[in-house]
Amino acid sequence: MMRRLQKIAVLGGGAWGTALALVAARAGRDVLLWARDASTVTAINETRSNPSYLPGVTFDAPFQATGDLGGAVSGCDAILLVTPAQTTREMAKAISSTIEPGTPVVLCAKGIERSTGALLADVLADCLPQATPAVLSGPSFADDVAKKLPTAVTVAASQGEVADALSAALASESFRPYASTDVAGVQIGGALKNVLAIACGAVVGRGWGASAQAALTARGFREMTLLGTALGARPDTLTGLSGLGDLVLTCSSAQSRNFAFGLALGRGTPVKNLMSGGKLAEGIFTASVAVDLGKRHAVDLPLSTAVDAVLREKIDLDTALASLMTRPLKRETD
Amino acid sequence: MMRRLQKIAVLGGGAWGTALALVAARAGRDVLLWARDASTVTAINETRSNPSYLPGVTFDAPFQATGDLGGAVSGCDAILLVTPAQTTREMAKAISSTIEPGTPVVLCAKGIERSTGALLADVLADCLPQATPAVLSGPSFADDVAKKLPTAVTVAASQGEVADALSAALASESFRPYASTDVAGVQIGGALKNVLAIACGAVVGRGWGASAQAALTARGFREMTLLGTALGARPDTLTGLSGLGDLVLTCSSAQSRNFAFGLALGRGTPVKNLMSGGKLAEGIFTASVAVDLGKRHAVDLPLSTAVDAVLREKIDLDTALASLMTRPLKRETD
Repeated sequence: MMRRLQKIAVLGGGAWGTALALVAARAGRDVLLWARDASTVTAINETRSNPSYLPGVTFDAPFQATGDLGGAVSGCDAILLVTPAQTTREMAKAISSTIEPGTPVVLCAKGIERSTGALLADVLADCLPQATPAVLSGPSFADDVAKKLPTAVTVAASQGEVADALSAALASESFRPYASTDVAGVQIGGALKNVLAIACGAVVGRGWGASAQAALTARGFREMTLLGTALGARPDTLTGLSGLGDLVLTCSSAQSRNFAFGLALGRGTPVKNLMSGGKLAEGIFTASVAVDLGKRHAVDLPLSTAVDAVLREKIDLDTALASLMTRPLKRETD
Repeated sequence: MMRRLQKIAVLGGGAWGTALALVAARAGRDVLLWARDASTVTAINETRSNPSYLPGVTFDAPFQATGDLGGAVSGCDAILLVTPAQTTREMAKAISSTIEPGTPVVLCAKGIERSTGALLADVLADCLPQATPAVLSGPSFADDVAKKLPTAVTVAASQGEVADALSAALASESFRPYASTDVAGVQIGGALKNVLAIACGAVVGRGWGASAQAALTARGFREMTLLGTALGARPDTLTGLSGLGDLVLTCSSAQSRNFAFGLALGRGTPVKNLMSGGKLAEGIFTASVAVDLGKRHAVDLPLSTAVDAVLREKIDLDTALASLMTRPLKRETD
C-alpha cells in the first residue's frame, strides 16, 4: 500500500489548475497552488476566487496560493502539473532540484510537445527522471468541476498503486477518478481527439447536421483506436473516459478551442485568417503528427489526413467531405 | 457476386420509410413504397412529398407509393421493413405468402420485441424463414437524410455479399452504407443505446452539465460493450456507426424520443406521469430486458440498473446519481 498523499502542490493558476486545487481541497487534502501571475495569487488568498479564469465561482473548500514555486513543491506528496502542454519541459526543469525522488507528478494538460513530437510523460521522463509520472485526463470542463457538477476522469500511473493513491486523494462526491496503468494510452486519446474535434466543428459549422457529426465521431473514434493501439495504447483505455469520453465532449461543444476552430472553418473563415490568430488549437499540430505516425505504422487515417490537407490548404472543405463520402464502399471493420 | 438489387420495396410510410425510399431512388433504384395510410400514398404520388411526416421536403428523386402490400412485395429484389419495431411479427406474417425465397428483408426499425424479448432478426427467422434477414442501423435522423445531409450507416447481413449488394444498392454521395456481417451486434447496439439515452437525457434535464453527460456516454458505452459482447456482438460493431455512432447521436439530441423522455424525468416530471403518455420510449422496456440479461450473463450494469430502478420508482434520480458517483473507487477497466 502506498502512503496517503496529503500535501498536494498544484502548479498552474488557470481555470483548470484552480478547479483541480478545489477538487483536492474538497477531498480533504492540504493544497498549495502555485501561479505565475501575482494577481492570481492575491485573488485566491484574499477573495477565495479566481475571477480572471473562473468568474462567478467562490471556493467552497479552503486552499492557499503562492508565487514561490520551490516553496510549493518542497515537501509535497504529489504534484498536479496544470501549466500549458508546451511549458512541460520548462516546468520540469524548474522543479527538478526541489522535488523529492519518487514524488508523483500528474500531467493535467493535454497535447504533444511540438518541437519533438513527444508525449508529455516522455518529456517528464527525460527532464525529471526522479519523479513518478502520472496523467489525469477525461471529459471535464473546468467550469463544471468548479461548480461541483458531477465529473469522472481517468488517473493513470504505470504502477497501479500510485494510480489508486492519486484517485483516493482526489475523490469526492462530485469528482470521481478511475485508476488506470496505461499512461501512454491516456495521453494518446487526449491528444488525438483534438484533431477529430476540428473535423466535427467543421461539419457543424458547414451545417451538415447531427447525423453527420455522430458518424464522424464514430469513424473518428475508429481512427483513434487504430492509431492509438499501434502506438501502444490499450483498447480499453481508448473506449474509456480519457479517450471516448473526452472525444464525445470535445466533439460536441464550442467550449473546446479545437471544436471552435473547426466551427469557424466550416462557416467559411479562410484557413490563413484562422492560423494568424493568437493561441492556436492543439489539434492543428497534432493533425500533422498523426498523419506522419499513420504512415510510419501503416494505418489508414482518412479523417486526420483530410483535416491536415484542409489546414495546409491542399484541398477545400467540400472536396474533403465529398472524398470521404465517396470512397469505395467497404466493410465497416476493414 | 450477388446480382444487382434493382427493385426495392419500402414498407412503411413514416418519416424514416419515406427518407429511405428517397435514398434508394437517389441511388438509382426502382422504388415502390407501401403505406398503411391512404392519404400518405396519395400525397407521395401526387405531390412528391409526405407533409405529415417530412414537412418541407420535396422529393428530388422519383418513387411511387401504394396501399397494396402484396403488390409492393411481389417481384421485388429487396425489402426495407420500416414499420415500428413492435409490428415486425405482424408484417412478417403479412408478406410471407408473397415474398420470393432468399429475398433480403432489411430491418430498419430498432428495438426488442416486448412480448418475447427477442431481437427483431430472430422474429423474422421465426415467421419468415424463407427470407434473408438484414439490418440497417446507424446515426441517422430521417430529416437529415431527406434533406440530403451526409449520413453514414451500417448494413448487416450474415452473408457478406448480401450486405455488400445492399450497400451498393443504397449508396449515393449523401448516404454512405458500410457493410457488416454482424447482424446480432448491429441490433444489440441499436437497442441498448436507448437505455443510455434516457440516462443522458436525465443528466441534461437535471442540469448536471456537459462533462457528466460525456462521462455517462463513455461509461454507458462500456456497459453496451460488456453486455453486447456477452450476447454475441463483435466489439468492432459496437464501436461502429450502429453502436457508438448512434449512441452519440441519441445521447445528445432531444430529437430522440428516449433522450426526450430522460430530459423530462431530469426536469422533475414524475415517472408515473411520463408512463401514462401515449407512445412510450423503447428504452423503458429495454432497460428491464438489459438488467435481466446482465444478471443471466453475470455482467455488472450500474447505469442500466439505475435507469431501471428509477423507472420502477424504487429510487429517485438524485439518489441514483449519488450512488453512481460514490461507488467504491476502482480501476477503469475492472
